[in-house]
Amino acid sequence: MPEPHSAAATGDVIDGPPVVVEPEGRPFGGSTDPARLDTRGPDATGRALLAELADAMDTDRVLTDPDTVRPYVHDEAEWAEYGTPLCVVRARSTADVAAVVGACARHRVPVVPRGAGTGLSGGANAVEGCVLLSLEKMTAIREISAGERLAVVEPGVVNDDLRAACAEQGLWYPPDPASAPWSTIGGNVATNAGGLCCVKYGVTRDYVLACEVVTASGEVVRVGRRTAKGVVGYDLAGLLVGSEGTLGVITEITVKLRPARPSAPRTVVGFFGSLADCGAAVAAVTEQGMQPAVFELVDRECLQAVNSWRNAGLPEGAAALLLAQTDLPEPAAEAEADAILAAFTAHGATEAMASTDEAEAEALFAARRMAYPALEQLGMGMLTEDVCVPRSRMAQMLARIEEIGRTRDVRIATVAHAGDGNLHPLMLTPHDDPAARDRTKAAFDEIISAAVELGGTVTGEHGVGLLKRDGMERELGPGALAMQRAVKAALDPDMIFNPGKAV
Amino acid sequence: MPEPHSAAATGDVIDGPPVVVEPEGRPFGGSTDPARLDTRGPDATGRALLAELADAMDTDRVLTDPDTVRPYVHDEAEWAEYGTPLCVVRARSTADVAAVVGACARHRVPVVPRGAGTGLSGGANAVEGCVLLSLEKMTAIREISAGERLAVVEPGVVNDDLRAACAEQGLWYPPDPASAPWSTIGGNVATNAGGLCCVKYGVTRDYVLACEVVTASGEVVRVGRRTAKGVVGYDLAGLLVGSEGTLGVITEITVKLRPARPSAPRTVVGFFGSLADCGAAVAAVTEQGMQPAVFELVDRECLQAVNSWRNAGLPEGAAALLLAQTDLPEPAAEAEADAILAAFTAHGATEAMASTDEAEAEALFAARRMAYPALEQLGMGMLTEDVCVPRSRMAQMLARIEEIGRTRDVRIATVAHAGDGNLHPLMLTPHDDPAARDRTKAAFDEIISAAVELGGTVTGEHGVGLLKRDGMERELGPGALAMQRAVKAALDPDMIFNPGKAV
Repeated sequence: MPEPHSAAATGDVIDGPPVVVEPEGRPFGGSTDPARLDTRGPDATGRALLAELADAMDTDRVLTDPDTVRPYVHDEAEWAEYGTPLCVVRARSTADVAAVVGACARHRVPVVPRGAGTGLSGGANAVEGCVLLSLEKMTAIREISAGERLAVVEPGVVNDDLRAACAEQGLWYPPDPASAPWSTIGGNVATNAGGLCCVKYGVTRDYVLACEVVTASGEVVRVGRRTAKGVVGYDLAGLLVGSEGTLGVITEITVKLRPARPSAPRTVVGFFGSLADCGAAVAAVTEQGMQPAVFELVDRECLQAVNSWRNAGLPEGAAALLLAQTDLPEPAAEAEADAILAAFTAHGATEAMASTDEAEAEALFAARRMAYPALEQLGMGMLTEDVCVPRSRMAQMLARIEEIGRTRDVRIATVAHAGDGNLHPLMLTPHDDPAARDRTKAAFDEIISAAVELGGTVTGEHGVGLLKRDGMERELGPGALAMQRAVKAALDPDMIFNPGKAV
Repeated sequence: MPEPHSAAATGDVIDGPPVVVEPEGRPFGGSTDPARLDTRGPDATGRALLAELADAMDTDRVLTDPDTVRPYVHDEAEWAEYGTPLCVVRARSTADVAAVVGACARHRVPVVPRGAGTGLSGGANAVEGCVLLSLEKMTAIREISAGERLAVVEPGVVNDDLRAACAEQGLWYPPDPASAPWSTIGGNVATNAGGLCCVKYGVTRDYVLACEVVTASGEVVRVGRRTAKGVVGYDLAGLLVGSEGTLGVITEITVKLRPARPSAPRTVVGFFGSLADCGAAVAAVTEQGMQPAVFELVDRECLQAVNSWRNAGLPEGAAALLLAQTDLPEPAAEAEADAILAAFTAHGATEAMASTDEAEAEALFAARRMAYPALEQLGMGMLTEDVCVPRSRMAQMLARIEEIGRTRDVRIATVAHAGDGNLHPLMLTPHDDPAARDRTKAAFDEIISAAVELGGTVTGEHGVGLLKRDGMERELGPGALAMQRAVKAALDPDMIFNPGKAV
């Protein structure tokens, strides 16, 4: 069996083979042994459930050997807790999923659904004694229709695989999280994944038409529709998107597609001496009605890391780099690129340029693409934040992050989906330095608080999982939390689906 | 007080002043007197509730006089049942709404929220003994922000008023139901209204970022966000969209905006001799990756009505007219218009042409704009259907509608949002002809069944209300219905919000 991929989920470029990270968090809901899974073995309930699963499906689908189970117990969230699962089930069909959920419901054993494990919030981490239900083997693309502009897929289909299959038919599935080479559509749906082009084309929720879901009773239910429009009853498909496996296990997804974009995008970059100038440039582009298809920010720390790693010659002293791409049909793209360039220059860009051809566009984008691998070269622990603030507050939020890094003595490198106000501060922490880890955790909390203070949200696209549960309480009022919990209780009355996560 | 508008909600053009239609349905949930409201007056519970409301707010907000109440008791759904409300409350603030909901919750009296009453499914019709809670006076546009690309509005803001206010700032709120001159954003949210440009730009749900809602306990809760992205907990704002007032009363809405479109669209029209050719042309446009901003169909009955009314000289014998508009930046719009024209011609259009200027585009669109008023001139009852089928099934569905009209002896004129597969067959029935009315009802049912058989939905954009409750049961399986009801019970345990509607 191939090991589940676990290199940094946010990495746009990964050098070398996937590395299985040794568990280093403390178990969640179970023992406190930090480095190992619980080896006491299942209790009576667990043994009864395992026997039922053995009767219900081929035995090679049920993994109990600790070495085989270990790669599944957590996702990519640094320091998020996890427990020892009863077993891993690698489902191959909806029937397998229904059998697992039905058995777990009867025995009141938690079910934790899981895709590729590239999540960054701990949403797929094992709960003590749970069945880890892996959907990675459900990889069929059942339909791609140009006439209906939709695809029907199993949850384990990898995002890039779907995108490639669509491209062959002149179609496009836009959601493009940085984890697209490894993450699954099921996982993308669970976290309502975003990506680079969502600034213009929307996030996963905007593309999900329908789901087949196994409910708390083990029943297989279809929600949503195949039609372009529809308003029959509540939008249950939309409710499942972003629910992080807490309402049911999704076994099939129907997604909307767009026609492929005809031309390569034009790229505009600008280096800024101050965060304030950079924020003003972003605001100007938005206020003037431009709509880049990609609009990213790379901060000083990232630029310096890229320079150190690849001697890239990026301007020393730049506070941030903005990169925008426009994909309008020509010559409108040229006009929009010119307008963006003018906005960058008018708002204090120290250097700014636009591509004239595709190769040049690629070269201009290199600093963004190299940011993660350059930071990875530093050999430090990386805790990835994911906050989103109103667009006009982005410069303020960046300044707060810099200040928090200074006062807490934490090295923080930030990339941001600038056009969305969605920031990913990456907190770099030396390994084996408990004091540094404590400082990082404090900085993580302060960034969350700052985002809420600025009218933002504690998670733009990674999900609540384990890491943002406190933040969620800070962000939502008691009334909204009560509504969340009422919905959870209505659809999962025995709390078997991914308990302790998100809601 | 201005009378609530009640001219046909689907009419793109209304001649003369709004006419208040005399109630003609049979009461819903109460007496069976077809023409009048119940005059027995409130019972003890009703009197106690009225006394509480009189204490809680200015008395001019509470209407009990039957003549004043009458215009509020139903929406535009032909023949949908309605009852006698206890009173109408014209709320002016969130506090008013909270007071009404709190008092109704204590007395277990139903609350039926209502906007302009332009709905077409009976969703806003009075339930016997309810408080009809009109939001029409909550008309403040609280914010329009170019920097955040959003607007914050009260629910009673009329769609066209919001669109006009946005246009002044170079911004655009796309959802454009035919009722836009009268219908409110609150009503649009309740039914997840679509319109002409949703084929390219999406429906109301795609634009709702956040809501303030008064819940079943009378509490004021904010759900959703102001940021471009966010995944904290379940998408409760999305859940409220299309919930037809059954989960709470929405008192404020934050909607996403787009930059205004820079140029006037180009229009392409094609007349087709057969529905099959017309369907093939629609399919070709979609399959070839074109994305018209408007893509409409007008059928033979409509064309003949327009000819009779205005001597319009439209081709006699045409089975249908297709109208497409493209709003790409030039010269891409010209190229797309040419490609659409070529697709029309290649698939058997008997006459086809593209506009070269805005005035010509307007002229080409006249047949679509005149269809409703031309049908209204016939002086018959009009029952508006709203089914949506997979795009590739549209021609089949049109043929089924024609066949149903023939076998049931019902005159049916159809307009359709062709690009979405969303059809609005208008069933024309002579007044005071009970046998004809029965035939129409049978045809209505058969159209719903045909849509479900073809893999479609019983309502594309009007909502379930009262008219589509049976259809909803036919469309959704028992599992999905159970999930719908569980959500309803979780958020409205005493079933005070719009009971008997939708779910």
